[in-house]
Parts: sequence; structure tokens; C-alpha cells
Amino acid sequence: MASRALILALRLLMLVFLVVSLVVLTTDTVTLQIYFNTEVHVRFRDVYAYRYMLGTIVVGAAYTLIQIARTLHRTCKANQEISRDGVTLFDFFADQITSYVLATGSAAGFGATKDLKSVFEFVGSAYDKFFNKGYAASSLLLFAFVCAALLSIVSSFGLPKKV
Amino acid sequence: MASRALILALRLLMLVFLVVSLVVLTTDTVTLQIYFNTEVHVRFRDVYAYRYMLGTIVVGAAYTLIQIARTLHRTCKANQEISRDGVTLFDFFADQITSYVLATGSAAGFGATKDLKSVFEFVGSAYDKFFNKGYAASSLLLFAFVCAALLSIVSSFGLPKKV
Repeated sequence: MASRALILALRLLMLVFLVVSLVVLTTDTVTLQIYFNTEVHVRFRDVYAYRYMLGTIVVGAAYTLIQIARTLHRTCKANQEISRDGVTLFDFFADQITSYVLATGSAAGFGATKDLKSVFEFVGSAYDKFFNKGYAASSLLLFAFVCAALLSIVSSFGLPKKV
Repeated sequence: MASRALILALRLLMLVFLVVSLVVLTTDTVTLQIYFNTEVHVRFRDVYAYRYMLGTIVVGAAYTLIQIARTLHRTCKANQEISRDGVTLFDFFADQITSYVLATGSAAGFGATKDLKSVFEFVGSAYDKFFNKGYAASSLLLFAFVCAALLSIVSSFGLPKKV
């Protein structure tokens, strides 16, 4: 019961990180004035790595919501037969895959931001803000990944011994 | 015994992918002629994400070599007490962490390559070659990651039940 509460808390924390990362990423826009009347809008979806990040955040959040719903359903029904089964193979593989998806999303974000920032350094502070928000979103995704990795370790220990 | 051979084969395959990825990455250079007498050398270490990739490859290869040596040592000594212990906690955590390290290395490489390639499109085919080699190195690192992920799953199943 205690471990179930811990798992639920970790999943909720992960969901919070994912939602905040989603908000930071999708509001990441910058407007550059090139000439007096020419404005260029740069949005997060102009960076391919950020689009991939968005995809990983959506997958991670959807999976976490499903798992939270499942845990609450089990707890409410107090179904002893299900709870004795412990971690199912689905939980184990899904947790493992989700943690890899979030790890790659965060790494792609950091990788692209670091190099693009150095390429566009000459443009000035407007782009700097844009990439700093990219860093913020990648960092939040990294925190979500840490939660996912911990959950993945917990499910590994709950697996039946040797198959 | 059969599973030990499978694990050894996976580790050897992973090492091959890592070494080839290392060779492709470190030989990734391009020379651009800007004016008649001005040449610009671009090397893999000018891209931050590629430096990080190099780090992950070195960590992955070093760990794999240690594990291969351990497995061969155990097999030669035919030490039954050790083999009955199955997967140790060290193996489990080290396999898990290595797979995350390789996943992030590959993702950072793909993320930076995709976006930098589109930024430097105007320069022409010389840069294209440079980034295509970056893609090749990232793909090889992705294959190494798949081996690491499989090894991580194998060690999860070998863990003692619930701690």
C-alpha cells in the first residue's frame, strides 16, 4: 500500500513536470525586427527537435494519465486479486519505454538548443530568450524523465523472478 | 548457460556498434573554401552535441569491455556460486544507466544534426556530407542503445523478486 502511494506520487509529479514543460515549450515564440517594417516570427515548431520534444511530452503525459487512472481504479475497488499480481509485464515494458522516450526528448532538446544558440549568437538577445525557454522546457522534461526512470526501476523490482 | 552466451553476444554486438560509431564520428571533418585562399576546417568537435555523443560512446564502450571481461572470467573459472547469484544489483543499475546514457547521446546527435543541417542548407553539399556522417554516427549509436536496452531488460528479469 505504501509503495502504491509512492508510485502514485511519482506519477503525479511526473505529470506536473510534463504539463509545465508543455506550457513552456508551446509558448516559446520570438518576434525579430529585421528592417523597420519587417518582422519575423519564430515559433517552437520551427525547430525540429522541439517538435519531437512535444511528441514525447504528449506520449508521456497520456501514458501517465492512463496509469494514474488505473491506480485510482484499483485502489477504489480494493481488488486484492489484482494487487497481489504486483507489476504486470505491461507496466514493466510501458514504464521502460516511456522513460526512454522522455530521455530522448530531453536530450534532443538540449542538443539542438546548445548548438543552435551558438549559431544564432550574432542575432542578439531576442534569440537568446527563445533558446533559454527551450532549455527550460528540456530541463523540465529531464525532471519528468528522472521520475519515469525511478518508476521503471520500481517496476523492475516488482517483476516475477526469471521468465 | 544459454542466456549467458546470449548476453555476451549482445554485449559484443553493442561494442561493435559503439566502435564503428566512434570511428565515423571522429573522422567527420569537412573543409570549406570560402574565398580562393581561405579554407575553413569544420570538425566534429565544433558541434557540442557531437562532443557529448563522443562522451557517451566512450562511457558505453568502457562499461561494455568491463562486462565482457567479467563474463569471460566467470565462464573460464566456471564458478558456480557466482553464477547462481544471477544478476547483481550492480549489473542491473549499470545496465539501466548505460542504456539511458546511450539513448541521450543518440538523441542529442539526431536533434542537433537535423536542425543544424536545415540552418546550413545554403552552404551546399560540403556541409551536407558532414551532417550525413553525423546522422550515420547517431544511427550506429541508436543500434548500440537497442542492444543496451535489451540487456537492461534481461537484467531486470534476473533481479531478485521485490526488495
